[in-house]
Amino acid sequence: MRRVEKCVGVVDTTFARIDMAGPAIEELQRLLPGYRIIRYTVPGIKDLPGAAKRLVDQHRCEGIITLGWVGRREADKYSYLAMSIGLIMAELLTGSVLIDVTVHEDEADDPEELRRIALDRARKHARNLALMVKEGPTALSRHAGRGLRQGYPDVGPL
Amino acid sequence: MRRVEKCVGVVDTTFARIDMAGPAIEELQRLLPGYRIIRYTVPGIKDLPGAAKRLVDQHRCEGIITLGWVGRREADKYSYLAMSIGLIMAELLTGSVLIDVTVHEDEADDPEELRRIALDRARKHARNLALMVKEGPTALSRHAGRGLRQGYPDVGPL
Amino acid sequence: MRRVEKCVGVVDTTFARIDMAGPAIEELQRLLPGYRIIRYTVPGIKDLPGAAKRLVDQHRCEGIITLGWVGRREADKYSYLAMSIGLIMAELLTGSVLIDVTVHEDEADDPEELRRIALDRARKHARNLALMVKEGPTALSRHAGRGLRQGYPDVGPL
Amino acid sequence: MRRVEKCVGVVDTTFARIDMAGPAIEELQRLLPGYRIIRYTVPGIKDLPGAAKRLVDQHRCEGIITLGWVGRREADKYSYLAMSIGLIMAELLTGSVLIDVTVHEDEADDPEELRRIALDRARKHARNLALMVKEGPTALSRHAGRGLRQGYPDVGPL
Amino acid sequence: MRRVEKCVGVVDTTFARIDMAGPAIEELQRLLPGYRIIRYTVPGIKDLPGAAKRLVDQHRCEGIITLGWVGRREADKYSYLAMSIGLIMAELLTGSVLIDVTVHEDEADDPEELRRIALDRARKHARNLALMVKEGPTALSRHAGRGLRQGYPDVGPL
Repeated sequence: MRRVEKCVGVVDTTFARIDMAGPAIEELQRLLPGYRIIRYTVPGIKDLPGAAKRLVDQHRCEGIITLGWVGRREADKYSYLAMSIGLIMAELLTGSVLIDVTVHEDEADDPEELRRIALDRARKHARNLALMVKEGPTALSRHAGRGLRQGYPDVGPL
Repeated sequence: MRRVEKCVGVVDTTFARIDMAGPAIEELQRLLPGYRIIRYTVPGIKDLPGAAKRLVDQHRCEGIITLGWVGRREADKYSYLAMSIGLIMAELLTGSVLIDVTVHEDEADDPEELRRIALDRARKHARNLALMVKEGPTALSRHAGRGLRQGYPDVGPL
Repeated sequence: MRRVEKCVGVVDTTFARIDMAGPAIEELQRLLPGYRIIRYTVPGIKDLPGAAKRLVDQHRCEGIITLGWVGRREADKYSYLAMSIGLIMAELLTGSVLIDVTVHEDEADDPEELRRIALDRARKHARNLALMVKEGPTALSRHAGRGLRQGYPDVGPL
Repeated sequence: MRRVEKCVGVVDTTFARIDMAGPAIEELQRLLPGYRIIRYTVPGIKDLPGAAKRLVDQHRCEGIITLGWVGRREADKYSYLAMSIGLIMAELLTGSVLIDVTVHEDEADDPEELRRIALDRARKHARNLALMVKEGPTALSRHAGRGLRQGYPDVGPL
Repeated sequence: MRRVEKCVGVVDTTFARIDMAGPAIEELQRLLPGYRIIRYTVPGIKDLPGAAKRLVDQHRCEGIITLGWVGRREADKYSYLAMSIGLIMAELLTGSVLIDVTVHEDEADDPEELRRIALDRARKHARNLALMVKEGPTALSRHAGRGLRQGYPDVGPL
């Protein structure tokens, strides 16, 4: 019988203009020391759901983080919608925790600002994934309804 | 053999700016005294369908209430659509009753008004869920076509 | 072995402002005298697909009619889209005939006109369902391409 | 054991304002002489995917042509999207060749022009279906990238 | 037992106005010398997911490249969305690598420019597919976050 190593997956794209896998992997290694981290790189966001599913099917990963980048054109917005539906379907079909990091290129005009958003979002969501994998359904419950944001400062509760 | 306790699930997010789980759990405890209430907190709305499905798969919960919060940006609207399709798919795949509470941040500019909407909607839909779980398909039939609203006063029949 | 009674299902909502189940049930009773009619009432349109599927799974109903009401806001339009995709998925997964009656609140400003639309649409589609269940795939073929409308007068062929 | 007759299906609607099944069936009979042609008529476009799947499930049809008509209202456009996703899902779930003919009522103001579009599109796509069923994956390859159109004259390659 | 030959699939359309299969097949032959390349031609983009799935089901292809062309009308945009969701579902259901090349006719007014975009995109994505099939999940990781583009020059990292 094949021994199954505990793992989480990181799926990123060559379309993205910032390497978000670096900070994501760093956080996952720090918070999930016993886990193998498996990388999968695909061309663009519509390829993320399939790759996430293949990682779970082949390695039984408990969690996956996907790192997507959405362009400025109308077609890119439709692609974002298709990807979002696809990632949810992948999560429903696999039962693994699937956390989706998406940066929209039109979130900021300044490259430095975009860079800050992307790295912060990837890092914070990698922490979310690690906590959910390690501690289960109530890992984030102390922050429920607290207006947390990834890529921006938390806005807090109303 | 593992004894299966009757349960309902409450899935909420850290993105939301108001704690809707409080009033939802209060109603569920009041109306479903024999049920265990299981909480699952995820980062944002696109994570709700997967968490709802995992709760049902692991605990055989008869019903789930999800508590989502939608931001003001165009991308948030697409995320709402993806979440809605995903929640319906989760309901089709599990056979459990899945009630979806969503607050759109642009429903009101006044924080107090938003707060009132969110709490009222969560509370009323928790009652809907409890009634449907306890009394079955005709639990709400006396109100069919009566223009009930959650988050706002009922508008009544035409 | 449990004896399976022939049945059709009627799924409606408490969100709707007109009771469409009344005329739908009346037509189904008249045209399908041997069938049990099972009612399921849910809060809103996004709850219709799950309830339709549960009715088929539990009672093996050959046909289902859903009676939805769509509000005037942009979010309501997205909900309509999600519901439509969900109802089609429910039909693909169950193999039962699923007929969807939807009234959009912005179809008319005059309440009396909306009422007329809703009742006519529910009644005509209940007839469609009964015919399809009783007579099969060619039940409606004599009207194919004839510009039939529900809620409005038929527009006829071009 | 039940002998399975070779068949193709034609699914049309009572909503359509032009009988597209006539020319479609004519072409299918001419090009697929050994096949039984099975008709299914439904009320509107959102009913097409379910009927197509039932035809394949009950008769093992190798191919299905659906004949849809889309109205001018915004809700009709959403229905077109839901139908399109549903037809693709039906094709993925059945493995049969499913060709979709859709006429949008706003393609032309002149009824004669609409009529010409609808009949031409139905006839050409029926030929496409027959060729794909008879000759398999490369039946249309000699026309790949050649700018073929159905309902309009071919635009040709760039 | 039937011997299964290693294969990749190329699915294109008669709607497209440029033959993208030529350069795609050329690259696949060059980079995957041991693989059979199987072609499937369908009428339009909504037919791509079904054909991709049938190729995998019948030949167990490890990878598929689809070559789509999207017209300028609003209905074409909805068709693009439906196709995108469908291709992702096909990828989730088959487990094969599915790379989607789409050219939008409104990407350029100049036919020569459109031609350049289409051929470059098909060729580069065929390379992506070949690399992913041959070298697996990390084949593209050295280019992750590097702003690669297909159809246009790479934009590079920020």
